[in-house]
Formats: sequence, structure tokens, C-alpha cells
Amino acid sequence: MNYETLALTLSNAIEQQRFDEAINQVQALRPIDTADILALVKPSLGWQLLERLPNRSTIFSYLEDNVQVALAQEFPRDSMARLVGEMPSDERADLYNYLDQDQRDALLPALAQAMREDIRRLAAYEEGTAGALMSSDYATLGAEMNVSEALAALRLEAPDAETIYHAYVIDEQRKLLGVVSLRTLILASPEQLIGDIMVSSVVSSNVNEDQEDVAKTVARYDLIALPIIDDSGALVGIVTHDDAMDVASDEATDDFHKSGGVSTMVGRLKDVSISILYRKRVFWLVFLVFGNLFSGLGISHFEDVIAANLVLVFFLPLLVDSGGNAGSQSATLMVRALATGDVVMRDWFSLLGREAMVALLLGATMAVAISIIGYIRGDAVVSLVLALSMMCVVMIGCVIGMSLPFVLNKLGFDPATASAPLITSVCDASGVLIYLFIASKFLTV
Amino acid sequence: MNYETLALTLSNAIEQQRFDEAINQVQALRPIDTADILALVKPSLGWQLLERLPNRSTIFSYLEDNVQVALAQEFPRDSMARLVGEMPSDERADLYNYLDQDQRDALLPALAQAMREDIRRLAAYEEGTAGALMSSDYATLGAEMNVSEALAALRLEAPDAETIYHAYVIDEQRKLLGVVSLRTLILASPEQLIGDIMVSSVVSSNVNEDQEDVAKTVARYDLIALPIIDDSGALVGIVTHDDAMDVASDEATDDFHKSGGVSTMVGRLKDVSISILYRKRVFWLVFLVFGNLFSGLGISHFEDVIAANLVLVFFLPLLVDSGGNAGSQSATLMVRALATGDVVMRDWFSLLGREAMVALLLGATMAVAISIIGYIRGDAVVSLVLALSMMCVVMIGCVIGMSLPFVLNKLGFDPATASAPLITSVCDASGVLIYLFIASKFLTV
Repeated sequence: MNYETLALTLSNAIEQQRFDEAINQVQALRPIDTADILALVKPSLGWQLLERLPNRSTIFSYLEDNVQVALAQEFPRDSMARLVGEMPSDERADLYNYLDQDQRDALLPALAQAMREDIRRLAAYEEGTAGALMSSDYATLGAEMNVSEALAALRLEAPDAETIYHAYVIDEQRKLLGVVSLRTLILASPEQLIGDIMVSSVVSSNVNEDQEDVAKTVARYDLIALPIIDDSGALVGIVTHDDAMDVASDEATDDFHKSGGVSTMVGRLKDVSISILYRKRVFWLVFLVFGNLFSGLGISHFEDVIAANLVLVFFLPLLVDSGGNAGSQSATLMVRALATGDVVMRDWFSLLGREAMVALLLGATMAVAISIIGYIRGDAVVSLVLALSMMCVVMIGCVIGMSLPFVLNKLGFDPATASAPLITSVCDASGVLIYLFIASKFLTV
Repeated sequence: MNYETLALTLSNAIEQQRFDEAINQVQALRPIDTADILALVKPSLGWQLLERLPNRSTIFSYLEDNVQVALAQEFPRDSMARLVGEMPSDERADLYNYLDQDQRDALLPALAQAMREDIRRLAAYEEGTAGALMSSDYATLGAEMNVSEALAALRLEAPDAETIYHAYVIDEQRKLLGVVSLRTLILASPEQLIGDIMVSSVVSSNVNEDQEDVAKTVARYDLIALPIIDDSGALVGIVTHDDAMDVASDEATDDFHKSGGVSTMVGRLKDVSISILYRKRVFWLVFLVFGNLFSGLGISHFEDVIAANLVLVFFLPLLVDSGGNAGSQSATLMVRALATGDVVMRDWFSLLGREAMVALLLGATMAVAISIIGYIRGDAVVSLVLALSMMCVVMIGCVIGMSLPFVLNKLGFDPATASAPLITSVCDASGVLIYLFIASKFLTV
């Protein structure tokens, strides 16, 4: 049965107050699957089922933010407060950020004091930082505890902690001293001291660090959770592997979109409105119209050569596109290598030399191809003009495509902004100039 | 101190047999950092340090495959067998696949019988499947055990298992019955039965499933490890979250490269040879040269109109590029949405309608921009020709850009092959034809 049909059956059952039947239907499903179905049910019906499910907070956490807000509107205040209380702390802070002031004012007084403070603290971190991503549900131990005391402490903390597979060892100032895995704990003898069995060289990130860097650290060191510390070295949260994976995936999507000349977009393509799609795309398109005027100006400068040799126009799109294509290949390779950290700024010079070699080979291959066509369609001189132009256009395209991401990076922009459309337009304009300049030297006016 | 300097210091220390000093230098580093440094040390020196490090197998596993093979060449046979014996089973099988026949023949007899069989079994799975990614180091329990027996069993299995945070419950035929987390175990009372506390609706994947789908499942359900079963339902391995994250990241890189018209590339950009770079890029470039001939043919068909109205050439790159740009934006959005699973085949029709609306708005905006420039540079008729052409070119570009990834997907190709260069060329050719056709209707020859 697909989600639409299930959502319909559920809606009917809820409307007729047959809740046992509705609960039965979603019982065997994983929380994220239930969430996907619930997203298709009217919020005024959905909340009635949700509040009756034992794993409601997990399901609610998987819902998209607009669905969460719509449901929050429907929930009675006390029921909502209970649900929010059960949510993981990072999801709870995110929800708080989505709610409008009225909804916040209604919700906060119904929560316990400690939870209110935790929400305010987490929600205050700037979006895109480790602080905004982290959870405050982690398990801590003292270095002076022994293993059996530690296991007892974990048993108490377990229902609340996002992951107890790693417990963090802190002192009175919450300074992070080390980490001990649950695996180490169950292998150790009960009377060993935590301070003796903990690993003291802990990988951690600062609370103000960029989320993408946090995700890279989690991936590089294969961590289940990464501890987050503040400037004083005190533990303030953890980022779990699944949240890091989401960040990495969103980041890859962003870079992919940018490289295609689409501004960063929030949400799933299916759900995005026409007006957002329009606004995310129109900037680049209009910008490039004006960029392409340079190509036009180049053409008008060489109008006489063109008028005398109309065959040049035949090859214009081909030559110009080739430079743009070669350039966007180079840019594609660089942008992704910079994003994954495979290449860093100081590699630029050595890569440039290699790129020039590759461009020379590519240019030569394409020059051969085009000069044959040129000879068939025109004559030997046209063929020579085309071959020479192709070599120059491809090489310049590659160098531009390779360098622009570095330059953008150096200037503090995201290298992914060196999008295919931008590179194409820059290379096109230089291609037109090179082609017609070479042609004007060899052909009669 | 950077890696190059550290690698130099290490090399000197090893050469002069000052191993304690060398070991001290890498002691505090994480295994992956040690691996990155070791990759810069000559293999004939590197192996001498590696075999003296207690966490040698972890470090070795982090090395790139070519470095692993070079080191394997240097290692004495017994030392190598010991190292291989300590490696995680999935890394071990990968190494076996990289080695040549001579190296395999030298290595295998030095290993225990069970390990030889495990290597052969894992190495036999086709690349790109769950089987080739999975590890056979997982912990299993019987449903009839009680919690204290289970914990005792895990203590015995722990040093070998990739993750003991989830133990899989199997019957005599190794059929997967359920999963129990270490968290549940330490919270349960010692005499409870595993069969009573296990979760029996387990998310699992088939051993022949595509790695990308496996990675998507791990991400969707936020798993630390995903059990892999064969066709009979028997547990044969697990895929851990970190391996899944690597697959997702490689996949994003592949799609990114394809969208830029670069064939899939193995390895890091810094390390790839010029000849591989050339071969990965030349196909698309030459292919597109011939593709662009269609634009040329279109132009030669309308040569008379062009000769009589040279101002048309001025706007040619601009108009033609705009269609390509709009088209590659659409393709970018679709390719990534198909890759992440946000959009599926049956969404095509509803998305097409919305895309047409967006294209209409984009086309209208750009038509206004270009008609102003056309009026300045030419006259009212030119301005009208340009505005009309721009509308048509952008709309057709968008529809092509949106549909091509779906068509490729339907035909069994990777939609990411709908690269920016391909879309650009297809849209260019149709753009030239539309533009000159409209011009020939309005302008005198």
C-alpha cells in the first residue's frame, strides 16, 4: 500500500474516532515512515493520532518544519508541552525557532524551568554553527568514578541521552577530560577507575565552528558523536553521526545547485513554490544576459570580418561552447575537490601546471576534430584559423575554470558559486574575442 | 608542524633505526592522521614503523589502496599476515582485491583457514553491491539467552566486532530474528530473555542491493549499522554508518562530476594522473563538438537573413546561452532531486506543469531585459524578434532540462549524465533554430 492510500485510510479512521484501528496501522512502521504518512494527513486530524502514539516525539522530530508548525497550531497546550518535553533537545530548539512569537509564548510557560533555559540556550546559536546543530542530551561521567558506578550512572541517564555509546568525562568546570566508550566499560573490570581507562586525546569542535566543518570531522574520524566545547574548553553538547550525515548531504545538494546557477534552496523540490523557484533562478539568468553582452560587443567590433566571411558564423557556437564546456569541466573538478577538502589553497600552483598540460592535450584533440570539419566546409585557411582558435579557447577556458573557484574561495565566497553558467559566459566572451581576433589576422576583410 | 615536515622527520628517524622516537611522534595522533603522514613516507621505511605501532591495522585500513599495495610489497610475509589478521573484515577483503595474484598466493597460506574463507567470500561480491561494502565483524545473540548471558557473550565477541552497540538475534539457520541495542541490554534486568526485549521489525538490506541504496537506508533510518541478509533471510554482514557516509559522499562527487561533463573518476583530484584526467574529459568535449555542428547547420540554413541583418549575430551568443543556462538550471534541480529520492518518476507530469509556469516567468523577465537592449542597438522589429525568441528559447530550454534527466532515468542511465554541457548543447541548437526562424519571419532578407 502506498503512502497516499494509507494516509487516506488513516484520515477516515481518525475522523470517525476509530483510534485503535489507526494506531494498529502505523504500529509496525518505522518512525520516519509514519512521519511521511502523517505529513499527508490534515493537521487537525493528524495531531489526534500523534498524541496517542508512544513514540510520538520521535515521529514528530522527523516531520518537515512547516508540518511541525501546522501541527503545533492544533495541539492543545498541555499535550504540546508533553510532546516537546519528550523531543531530543536539538530538535526542540529547532522547533522553537520555527514557531511565531504567539506560539512560543503559549508553549514556554507549560515547560519546566530547566527545559526552558535549555531551549533558549540552544536556540540562541547562530544558524549554520555547531551550536545550532548540537544536542544537549549526552552522558557525562567523573574521572574519579569506577566502572560499576559509571554503568549505574549511565543507566540513570540513558533514557534521556541521544547516545550513551560514548560518555564524556568532565571535571567540576565541565572541562572535557576524555571519552570512554560503552564497549570499553563493559569490557573493563568493575573496580577500574574511569580516569585510567578513558581516552584523553578527544576529537572535539568549537561551538562556533561551521556545520560543514563539523560534518567533515565526524566523517574523517568515523565518529558516532562529536563533543562540542565552548571557548573555555567546557563541554556544551554533542553532534551525532546522523545529524552530521544530513549536513553533508544538504551541503552536497547546495553545491550541486550553485554549480548549476541556482541559489541555495530550502526544502524538497517537490514542495517548493513557483515563486521561490523563480526567485532562486532569475538572478543568474538576468546577470548572465548582461554578461553575454560582452560577447556581443566583441562580435560587433569584428563585424567587417564576419560580413566578408559568413562561414565564421557557422563555427561560432561550436568554438565558443567548447571553451565554456572545457572550463566548466575544470571548475566542476575544483569546486568538488575544494568542498571535500581533497585540495587546499596552496595546491593551486601545482594544479595549474597540470591543468595546463591536460588543456593542451584536450585542445589539440579538439583542434584536429574541428580543422577537418573546417576544411570540408571552408578551405585550408579557415581550417587553420579554427584549429588555432580551438587550442587557445580550450586552454583559456580550462585556466579560467580552474582558477575562478580558488579566487572566489580566497575572496571569501563559496567556490561553488563558480557555476557552470558563470564559467560558460566568461569563457564564451573570451572565446568570441580570440576566435574573431585570430580570424581577422588570417582572413581578408 | 605540517604533514610533509612530520613525514621527513619520521623518515630520518626510521632510517637511523630510532624507532622509539618515531613511535613517540605519532603516539598522540588519530589513526587517520598517522595514515596521511605515512602515505608521504617511502614504503620501504614506512612498513618498519607501521609494524611497531599497536594500532597498525587501523592505520593501515585508512591508507589509500595504492599505498596499501606498495606497503604490502615491503612487509615480510609473517608480519603482513599478522597485520591482515587484525584488519576489519571488509577492509581485508578490499585489500585482497587490490593485490596481484603473486601477492595473494604469498599471503593466503599464512592466514588461518576461517579467515581465508571469509576473505574469499567477501571478495567475491560484485563491486558496488552491499556485499562488497559489508563487514563480517558483527555480534550475534540467540533469542533464548538471558541478558547476563548476552552481556557475557558480547564481552567475548567485542574485540573482533566492528560495532557491538547493536547485536543481531539469529536462529540456527542464521535467519535474522531481531536486534537488541547495548543500551537496552544495560537497562534490562539480568534475567530477562533476549527474545522478549529484542526489536523484531529490523530494517535490513539484501546482499545484492546497490551500495547507494544501502547508504540511503542507513541515512533515512539514522542507523549505526545496517544488517545485510542473503536471499534466504540469513544474516551475512553489516554495513556501518561510517562506510555508508563514505558511499554517500563518493556518490555526491560522482554526480557532481557527471553534471559538469566529467566521467566518474576514482581517487583524489590531487593524485590523479594527467592521462586519466584527459581521458575522463575528452569524450564529452569531442562529442559536443559534433553536437554543436547542428547549431552550425541551423545557421547556414538562415545565412541570407544573417547576411542582410548582421545585428542578429550580435545577439546570437546571448540568446543561445540563455536557453542553455535556463535548461541547465532545470536539469541541476532535477538530477539532484532524483539522486536524493526527493522526486520519483511518477512526479514528472506534475513537475512539468510547474516548471512550465516558472519558465514562463523567467522567459518573460529576460524578454523584457533583452528587448530593451535590442531597441537601443537595433529597432522595434529587432526588439520584438528578440523578446519573442527569448521567451521560446527559455521555455524550451527549461522543458528539455527538466525532462532529459527523467528520460535518461527511464532508459536506465544515470540521470546525472544529463550534464550541463549536454543540456547546453541541445538547448543551443534548438535556440539557434528558433531565433533565426523567428527572425526570418519578421526581418527582410
